[in-house]
Amino acid sequence: MVDALGRLVGDRLHVGEAMRLEHGRSETHFAPMLPDAVVFAETTEEVAAVVRLCAEYRVPVIPFGAGSSVEGNTLAVHGGVSLDLSRMTRIVAVNTEDFDCTVEAGVRREELNEHLRDQGLFFPIDPGANATIGGMASTRASGTNAVRYGTMREAVLSLTVVTADGKVIRTSRRARKSSAGYDLTRLFVGSEGTLGIITEVTVRLHAIPESIQAATCSFETIGGAVDTVVQSIQLGIPLARVEILDDMQIRAVNRWSKLDLPELTTLFFEFHGSERYVAEQIETVSALAAENGGGEFRWASRTEERNALWKARHEAYYAAVNLRPGAIGWATDVCVPISRLAECIGETKRDLAASTIPATILGHVGDGNFHVVFSIDPDNPAELAEVKDINARMVRRALAMDGTCTGEHGIGLGKQDWLVEELGDAVGLMRSIKRALDPANILNPGKVFAF
Amino acid sequence: MVDALGRLVGDRLHVGEAMRLEHGRSETHFAPMLPDAVVFAETTEEVAAVVRLCAEYRVPVIPFGAGSSVEGNTLAVHGGVSLDLSRMTRIVAVNTEDFDCTVEAGVRREELNEHLRDQGLFFPIDPGANATIGGMASTRASGTNAVRYGTMREAVLSLTVVTADGKVIRTSRRARKSSAGYDLTRLFVGSEGTLGIITEVTVRLHAIPESIQAATCSFETIGGAVDTVVQSIQLGIPLARVEILDDMQIRAVNRWSKLDLPELTTLFFEFHGSERYVAEQIETVSALAAENGGGEFRWASRTEERNALWKARHEAYYAAVNLRPGAIGWATDVCVPISRLAECIGETKRDLAASTIPATILGHVGDGNFHVVFSIDPDNPAELAEVKDINARMVRRALAMDGTCTGEHGIGLGKQDWLVEELGDAVGLMRSIKRALDPANILNPGKVFAF
Ligand SMILES: Cc1cc2nc3c(=O)[nH]c(=O)nc-3n(C[C@H](O)[C@H](O)[C@H](O)COP(=O)(O)OP(=O)(O)OC[C@H]3O[C@@H](n4cnc5c(N)ncnc54)[C@H](O)[C@@H]3O)c2cc1C
Ligand SMILES: Cc1cc2nc3c(=O)[nH]c(=O)nc-3n(C[C@H](O)[C@H](O)[C@H](O)COP(=O)(O)OP(=O)(O)OC[C@H]3O[C@@H](n4cnc5c(N)ncnc54)[C@H](O)[C@@H]3O)c2cc1C
Repeated sequence: MVDALGRLVGDRLHVGEAMRLEHGRSETHFAPMLPDAVVFAETTEEVAAVVRLCAEYRVPVIPFGAGSSVEGNTLAVHGGVSLDLSRMTRIVAVNTEDFDCTVEAGVRREELNEHLRDQGLFFPIDPGANATIGGMASTRASGTNAVRYGTMREAVLSLTVVTADGKVIRTSRRARKSSAGYDLTRLFVGSEGTLGIITEVTVRLHAIPESIQAATCSFETIGGAVDTVVQSIQLGIPLARVEILDDMQIRAVNRWSKLDLPELTTLFFEFHGSERYVAEQIETVSALAAENGGGEFRWASRTEERNALWKARHEAYYAAVNLRPGAIGWATDVCVPISRLAECIGETKRDLAASTIPATILGHVGDGNFHVVFSIDPDNPAELAEVKDINARMVRRALAMDGTCTGEHGIGLGKQDWLVEELGDAVGLMRSIKRALDPANILNPGKVFAF
Repeated sequence: MVDALGRLVGDRLHVGEAMRLEHGRSETHFAPMLPDAVVFAETTEEVAAVVRLCAEYRVPVIPFGAGSSVEGNTLAVHGGVSLDLSRMTRIVAVNTEDFDCTVEAGVRREELNEHLRDQGLFFPIDPGANATIGGMASTRASGTNAVRYGTMREAVLSLTVVTADGKVIRTSRRARKSSAGYDLTRLFVGSEGTLGIITEVTVRLHAIPESIQAATCSFETIGGAVDTVVQSIQLGIPLARVEILDDMQIRAVNRWSKLDLPELTTLFFEFHGSERYVAEQIETVSALAAENGGGEFRWASRTEERNALWKARHEAYYAAVNLRPGAIGWATDVCVPISRLAECIGETKRDLAASTIPATILGHVGDGNFHVVFSIDPDNPAELAEVKDINARMVRRALAMDGTCTGEHGIGLGKQDWLVEELGDAVGLMRSIKRALDPANILNPGKVFAF
């Protein structure tokens, strides 16, 4: 098998310990599980050939993008081949008039936006990490501006996918809408590499708005911050970005990113539109903030200030984990209907107050989605157990509010039991689909659910 | 079997010819295919019981909403039970703060909006017919304001579904976003009753905007009208509605709905937002229209005028078919990337000019989606053949432009060959999913594809 792989991809096959560890470890608290080999693919045809070989030998194949997922999604539970797509970085086509582009799965979101900038376009979805577009499609990722522009569910128009038997399909045409059969695009989005390997992605783009204004605003209470967001949305204000960071998270960010924000619960806002429309949005939202105990808006007027602000937000996870040197991170990820958000965050905050483990709250508050980031001492197993417990309370609380155990990170290894608690018999249907599309269970086996 | 059904549902079982015909005919050119029986279900549990019975006897069960679909989607190809959900009209919950509601599948879009109006909310998706929300989910329907608010793909948050073995599942929680496993919600949306029977639907709602302005604008050329729309979208104007009607369609509408619009290609616009923002949008779009050979905007300022305008648009299909008394209708439904739309409509218009069959063009131009409505003499088989031919040319043209054979009507019986031409091997995956979820092929058999 290894010989045959070598004949296919030459020196892009790696079996050394270091490379296998790099592909068999995780950003978070999961112990490493190494693949037997790592292959860097360069074309769709090559991906198909590797999958056919793995199918022949019944060897697992685990697609790998940037490896930034946080639920152990890329770990090689049953060994096999980690198929790294990060060298598939071709921008296949940018259709400026149609506001879409097609890229290979290994293109990263920051590189895509650099490529697009000159054309007045941008791709909105921005997880904290500089993830690959293929990986983001596979976890149904979102980010700071999903509140306005949607998640990968809304962003993906079409996919090129290598199926478990090594066939290459395209899930949809490039038209904005279609009723042509089952929605395979949305089925692969969020399937975490368990149903097929995405090699090309067509995504929607947006025009860089005439005016972009970003600001922070501190609040006396978390409730006041959340209420400001909920009321803004209810008034139809199309907030482009609205992130919540609690006092602990602001302290971490100040330290890590050298900012000087007041160490209070803070909203990070961004407004997009024409000059006039942005002014109107700001007028409304700042009035609401004032009514809800918010302070003055601190404007990040220049592009560099604005970029620094969002860079700090994107690094908030590392800022939080590094509240303790040498700590490991764990990010929870519940999402609830926004009417329940203040309550959900408030109760969570009380749980955190009762614990000695450093933890921050931050979230995509316009979507009802928030994270607790724990900074865990790796040498103290009691801490991991305690975090597991607090997380369990959070998830149960969110489910009781008709929310989900994962707003954007996916199931991976970490949330399989919660998936069943959340969706019950529906998980049986997912399993049937998995068995139908990958009967030999070679595609990222052991993820989302046991076969 | 019929006895057992009768024991289940009592006098809500019908085997009379008239009722069977009502459920086995179509709005369009398909010949009737009657079910053996019609059952009116009243609860999810009853739907599940009927499905279990049909599964036991291996009898087809065809879900039926309002029967307004246009590709023969509800015809009983293999007989069986037409399961009519139109009496399941309970509004289960309206969550005003979360902008969503849960309704039984038989609720119709107009009734839902009447229910919501007092709460300042609306449900945007509006096919011409007063369809059921379950039927609309099942065809992935859209309407005049999909350009702003999306289609049923974006509108549906969660579904309650009875599966082929009579289990009841819920596809998702009510949170706005989730990465919890495969996207079953989107899989059932657009599956035309072939994978499960939807009994409840949770949909997103929107706030009725502070200001709504509607207008019509006539153009010298179709190209000028389409360019106005494309340029508006490229400038980021959030058009709430923008519909194109060609000269023939305007003639038909004037006659049918007693309007007096100039008989030229016309755009029907609607703008939503705050007073100020709507004024700004109108300023920009009317300037673009003028540059593209558009006339003055004719405003439908009062609510009644506006409603009359959209009523006329919604009845445009009947207006077109009735260009000839006693004619039958056929509505085509291609959708292309908007950069190709003017060309696609232009070439289609040339095909129509070469034919003697009355035909109109109208469409959801902001989505790249348009229809030709033919008014066919039922006693002249040559006409049906000619329309088939023109439609084939349209679909091939759309596919060559990376478009789809159906923007919103679905595959049903009418587009099965086109589905394969459009998506090739991907249809094999759809088949595998169908076999996995409905191994005995009892759910609306013979639709979308042969088993
Ligand atoms: C600091 C930090 C901040 C983050 N913030 C966010 C956030 O705001 N929002 C958010 O959604 N996530 C966030 N994440 C999580 C992570 O960035 C996302 O899950 C991202 O989508 C993973 O992309 P990737 O390229 O790293 O994929 P990987 O981690 O390499 O893979 C993710 C999963 O997808 C599969 N996969 C990868 N590529 C393909 C492919 N081409 N075809 C099929 N399957 C494939 C893998 O097998 C795996 O199951 C954050 C992570 C970090 C470390
Ligand atoms: C004048 C006119 C204008 C139209 N304009 C538009 C338009 O602008 N946009 C558009 O998208 N469509 C349009 N249509 C088509 C039609 O209205 C849509 O296809 C609509 O979604 C059908 O809904 P229905 O309730 O009538 O479903 P039905 O016709 O009863 O059923 C449609 C399909 O869904 C299945 N089904 C129905 N209910 C369920 C359920 N509860 N669970 C599972 N499967 C179910 C049926 O088996 C069938 O396959 C128009 C039709 C007409 C006659």
